[in-house]
Amino acid sequence: MENRYDIAIIGSGPAGLSAAINAKIRNKSIILFGNKDLSSKLIKASKINNYLGFHDITGEQLKDNFQNHIEKFDINVTNERVNEIYSMGDYFALMVNEICYEAKSIVIATGIEYTKPISGEEEFLGRGVGYCATCDAPLYKDRIVTVIGYNKEAEEEANYVSELASKLYYIPMYEGNYNLRKNIEVVKDKPIEIIGDNKVEKLILKSKEIYTDGVFVLKDSISPAQLVPGLLMEEGHIKVDRSMKTNIKGCFAAGDCIGKPYQYMKAAGEGLVAALSAVSYLDSNNRY
Amino acid sequence: MENRYDIAIIGSGPAGLSAAINAKIRNKSIILFGNKDLSSKLIKASKINNYLGFHDITGEQLKDNFQNHIEKFDINVTNERVNEIYSMGDYFALMVNEICYEAKSIVIATGIEYTKPISGEEEFLGRGVGYCATCDAPLYKDRIVTVIGYNKEAEEEANYVSELASKLYYIPMYEGNYNLRKNIEVVKDKPIEIIGDNKVEKLILKSKEIYTDGVFVLKDSISPAQLVPGLLMEEGHIKVDRSMKTNIKGCFAAGDCIGKPYQYMKAAGEGLVAALSAVSYLDSNNRY
Repeated sequence: MENRYDIAIIGSGPAGLSAAINAKIRNKSIILFGNKDLSSKLIKASKINNYLGFHDITGEQLKDNFQNHIEKFDINVTNERVNEIYSMGDYFALMVNEICYEAKSIVIATGIEYTKPISGEEEFLGRGVGYCATCDAPLYKDRIVTVIGYNKEAEEEANYVSELASKLYYIPMYEGNYNLRKNIEVVKDKPIEIIGDNKVEKLILKSKEIYTDGVFVLKDSISPAQLVPGLLMEEGHIKVDRSMKTNIKGCFAAGDCIGKPYQYMKAAGEGLVAALSAVSYLDSNNRY
Repeated sequence: MENRYDIAIIGSGPAGLSAAINAKIRNKSIILFGNKDLSSKLIKASKINNYLGFHDITGEQLKDNFQNHIEKFDINVTNERVNEIYSMGDYFALMVNEICYEAKSIVIATGIEYTKPISGEEEFLGRGVGYCATCDAPLYKDRIVTVIGYNKEAEEEANYVSELASKLYYIPMYEGNYNLRKNIEVVKDKPIEIIGDNKVEKLILKSKEIYTDGVFVLKDSISPAQLVPGLLMEEGHIKVDRSMKTNIKGCFAAGDCIGKPYQYMKAAGEGLVAALSAVSYLDSNNRY
């Protein structure tokens, strides 16, 4: 099957890249989800002094070295957002907009900067709250939908859903020109709380309230516990042991998302460990 | 005091170097014990592919990058062997031949390749067995001493002790010409066991036995548990938590000595974490 991999790596910062390289060296098929800048945090760093082997380098230069390294191994970054990952027992299903990828094991390396959930967001997840508008759109035919968009890409999803919905509110969380269909109502206001009885009924904004059947929160990244239902966290980080194992079989994690210090070198070391642990996991499961 | 440091780092492989750089960046006074090649394992590596940022580099080249990096921070490697480290409560005493260094905290990064102890060696440590001939020489005035030497440097120590001892046997564990005083008896044989009642009495070799009052085992490196009495081990490695803390207050560890996988990138990441943990430890203790 084309969309099935040995290891899916989510995140293209130092942890994800180090995991990808090591998995590839061990002859595993991988898919690496991330973005073309590899790490938005890294490229903004003006000076890095403590990544052993490189003295006084800019984030941009270090990124170029990383890019060169993965290219030498023919590793491509799949520039898509993973919305949700389900453990199916002996494999994982990764929901990426309309595509479902499968992987026998996963390495979560999503970093630490994610938007704080809106009050009620986690409570109503799956009961009116969703992270992928294009996936769930059919559920909202002729109903009222609100899209809270954190970036330009959210506009595209909003446009798509507005073709089916009876009404679409778009709440942009960024400045700019919005490329939206005419029937979409843009509401410039701050979301405060999602409320309802058994499912979403209303979105409370700072200065008004909207009756809505669904709320899509489309942000750059979501918290690991939202990404992988059932994943055990500890003080805001994914709980792992020293082999980078999480509480879910076949699921490993590395980098800032597993704890401080938030440092490139630590992340890269952990990415290596996570990949080698995933490789052992795969090899011990190999019954073919 | 001149010989007192904030952090003493033992080992100049990737873990020790990464610890040194990060401790220095945090304005701590450090001493880094190691050797001029930094890591004998690293320089022998013909090709390294999985140290993120460097593709297809030799161990020698990677070492040069490391060397350049520490030089930029004015970090020198103190080319001496630490024989024993004692925790004195709020500081550590590091025994280095005739010198005693002091450090408020330590990072052990000694790697994994150490010589297996001879049977009886650990049992009689301090009761006739020692790792520093020049330190303990006065105890053996007019007595019989055996030096088991694993390298050329051991010859110098043997020569020194032979000035006081009534008899000195030298058992070389390497090939070559021995630059030894005339009164030293070279015994080319394999040590099997050190025996005695309450203290060392005899060394059993493969083809003969030697009556001796003391046995000095002079090797390149000794196991962490011998280096730091009381250090808790787990399956042959130093036991640490994810912040690289050992069971001894102020003592941290990183790299191969804390467990597999034995990889440069993992070691470097852990060295960073160990250093930052040592820094927090020092800062939280700072009562001045």
